[in-house]
Amino acid sequence: MKTRAAVAWEANKPLTIETVDLEGPKAGEVLVEIMATGVCHTDAYTLSGLDSEGKFPCILGHEGAGVVREVGAGVTSVRPGDHVIPLYTPECRNCKTCLSQRSNLCTAIRSTQGQGIMPDGTSRFSCENPNKPVWHYMGCSTFSNFTVLPEIAVAKVREDAPFDKICYIGCGVTTGIGAVIYTAKVRPGSNVVVFGLGGIGLNVIQGARMVGADRIVGVDLNPAKAEMARKFGMTHFVNPDEVGRDKVVQAIQDITDGGADYSFECVGNVHTMRQALECCHRGWGESIIIGVAPSGTEISTRPFQLVTGRVWKGSAFGGARGRTDVPKIVDWYMEGKIDIDSLITHTMPLDRINDAFDLMHEGKSIRSVVTF
Amino acid sequence: MKTRAAVAWEANKPLTIETVDLEGPKAGEVLVEIMATGVCHTDAYTLSGLDSEGKFPCILGHEGAGVVREVGAGVTSVRPGDHVIPLYTPECRNCKTCLSQRSNLCTAIRSTQGQGIMPDGTSRFSCENPNKPVWHYMGCSTFSNFTVLPEIAVAKVREDAPFDKICYIGCGVTTGIGAVIYTAKVRPGSNVVVFGLGGIGLNVIQGARMVGADRIVGVDLNPAKAEMARKFGMTHFVNPDEVGRDKVVQAIQDITDGGADYSFECVGNVHTMRQALECCHRGWGESIIIGVAPSGTEISTRPFQLVTGRVWKGSAFGGARGRTDVPKIVDWYMEGKIDIDSLITHTMPLDRINDAFDLMHEGKSIRSVVTF
Repeated sequence: MKTRAAVAWEANKPLTIETVDLEGPKAGEVLVEIMATGVCHTDAYTLSGLDSEGKFPCILGHEGAGVVREVGAGVTSVRPGDHVIPLYTPECRNCKTCLSQRSNLCTAIRSTQGQGIMPDGTSRFSCENPNKPVWHYMGCSTFSNFTVLPEIAVAKVREDAPFDKICYIGCGVTTGIGAVIYTAKVRPGSNVVVFGLGGIGLNVIQGARMVGADRIVGVDLNPAKAEMARKFGMTHFVNPDEVGRDKVVQAIQDITDGGADYSFECVGNVHTMRQALECCHRGWGESIIIGVAPSGTEISTRPFQLVTGRVWKGSAFGGARGRTDVPKIVDWYMEGKIDIDSLITHTMPLDRINDAFDLMHEGKSIRSVVTF
Repeated sequence: MKTRAAVAWEANKPLTIETVDLEGPKAGEVLVEIMATGVCHTDAYTLSGLDSEGKFPCILGHEGAGVVREVGAGVTSVRPGDHVIPLYTPECRNCKTCLSQRSNLCTAIRSTQGQGIMPDGTSRFSCENPNKPVWHYMGCSTFSNFTVLPEIAVAKVREDAPFDKICYIGCGVTTGIGAVIYTAKVRPGSNVVVFGLGGIGLNVIQGARMVGADRIVGVDLNPAKAEMARKFGMTHFVNPDEVGRDKVVQAIQDITDGGADYSFECVGNVHTMRQALECCHRGWGESIIIGVAPSGTEISTRPFQLVTGRVWKGSAFGGARGRTDVPKIVDWYMEGKIDIDSLITHTMPLDRINDAFDLMHEGKSIRSVVTF
């Protein structure tokens, strides 16, 4: 079949809208009509050429929502007409990691996904010439109106949820809220500190509020971000330029009666990662790294910080098991327990998708959503 | 009263046996007759002058066992005749940390203990002249035949346990076994990796065996250490000089089907701390730092290690709550669940205590015990 898609032909060039060829789903795969997709920093990172796994030409996008239109042989968990969210972190429920019940980082299709191909080793996309493949991206390629995914990489969700909002649950919302709920397992009454008040940080904040955190401290260099953060549940704001960049840890300890029970790093900077650890309470404070630091950089601290009880961990896709947890988060949105609408600052059609990247780079959007 | 004690007059000088003055216990304190004490690396570290908290003259020693001889006003949990193990990590059961139920690092007397004094701000020890105090050490000073401790810093233990063995539970045994049981909470069937096969490492190994670990991998540069480690439960030995110092992580991953479920660093070297983290299994492996690294050194790694599911933590006194857990470990020893006898390679009277330091520095002892 043919489908419209935004193709990334090479690094650092605007996407172009093309009509590409798409092969139908093979065994264990499903064809999904993407109705809406968010544009995420990770898409921009790969487009910039800095992502060592980035492979061009490809169809970017990993934060979508749509409808199953066709299923391949042996597919049993979804059928045509089902509403789904594609999962860049699949959930096979059979690999060593899934069976460990201690991690969401399913390894069933990891090696092929990282190479831009389906589990059988080929791409379903091609352009101009069927022998010239266009690569998949993060197993999703939601910048295409139609895409093919492994069955284990779609979460079936309720049908009354709006695509142009719940697509954000495919990455940002789940990454932030999940880090609170699934990775850190924040307890009611906790003091929580969030470094970076962008889209992920705001979702961490509303996750912390949802589970009954007490003090929720936001840290950001941009005071303009405080207003939105307060709406999402932030109770205290720390601007490192106001308190002194080397006094951030002390300022947080003062606000939290000795330190954070849980801290979350949503900046992607190894210096704030260290501050996030060291602002944790002696004895039990846990720091969770969510942000992606530049390639080659390293975190460091004195081991004394850990020996005296602080714990350093990280979170990917919020520790969420996609097929199990994503439908619950959609429910929470529909029940009004979490806010997504305020975070989607821009919506545009596919042929304006490059605007979404511009808005992101200019810091004008929290999240832009493209509708088909 | 008068008591015999080994006094450290200044850094880097042999201890001398003195008759010192000891004031009786004040309110909330107990007088303990020390029957036996281990000599630990931490005593040697402070004696070396490198410990920034070290204060001379002092009476070192923190790994003892003895009998309560007198109690101060208001003491209710022990009485004269009780057998006890002094606790350098007390357990008040009332401070924020004890009440958190998430850490053993009781803060009730932390500030005075670090200054070598009792909670009322004075020392009970003096020598030659009552106005010239000799300082307490780690709240214990077990190199004195009699010593005074806060009530919250003694663990009451069964009376049939031999002092010259259970004194080791006052530090080394609990530090190693506790890190497995209380800090890491190692599950049966786990793969465990232990860096450093000294006294602490051997106790980690027997702790791992006790809780049903599967593969127990020891890592040490000295192949002579493997034999004893095998007796304690080690199933595989990795010598970094044999596999290549930069291939240790790979060697461990090969043995453990992808990485350690839990690793323990018992060396006190920031490079092995990094290896201990990075040899952990993607998704859930946890690395616990036990060793004390040189002052000023830092641990580092790529944040990707944490984002992909590894957890970095530390352990002090094995995460054990002294009054609650130490008596249980004494029981385990008496029931034959753990071996202490093989680890105590030398026993000597107080006037030979400097030999214990020499044997340690020469690598000839696992643990030396001084009896009074």
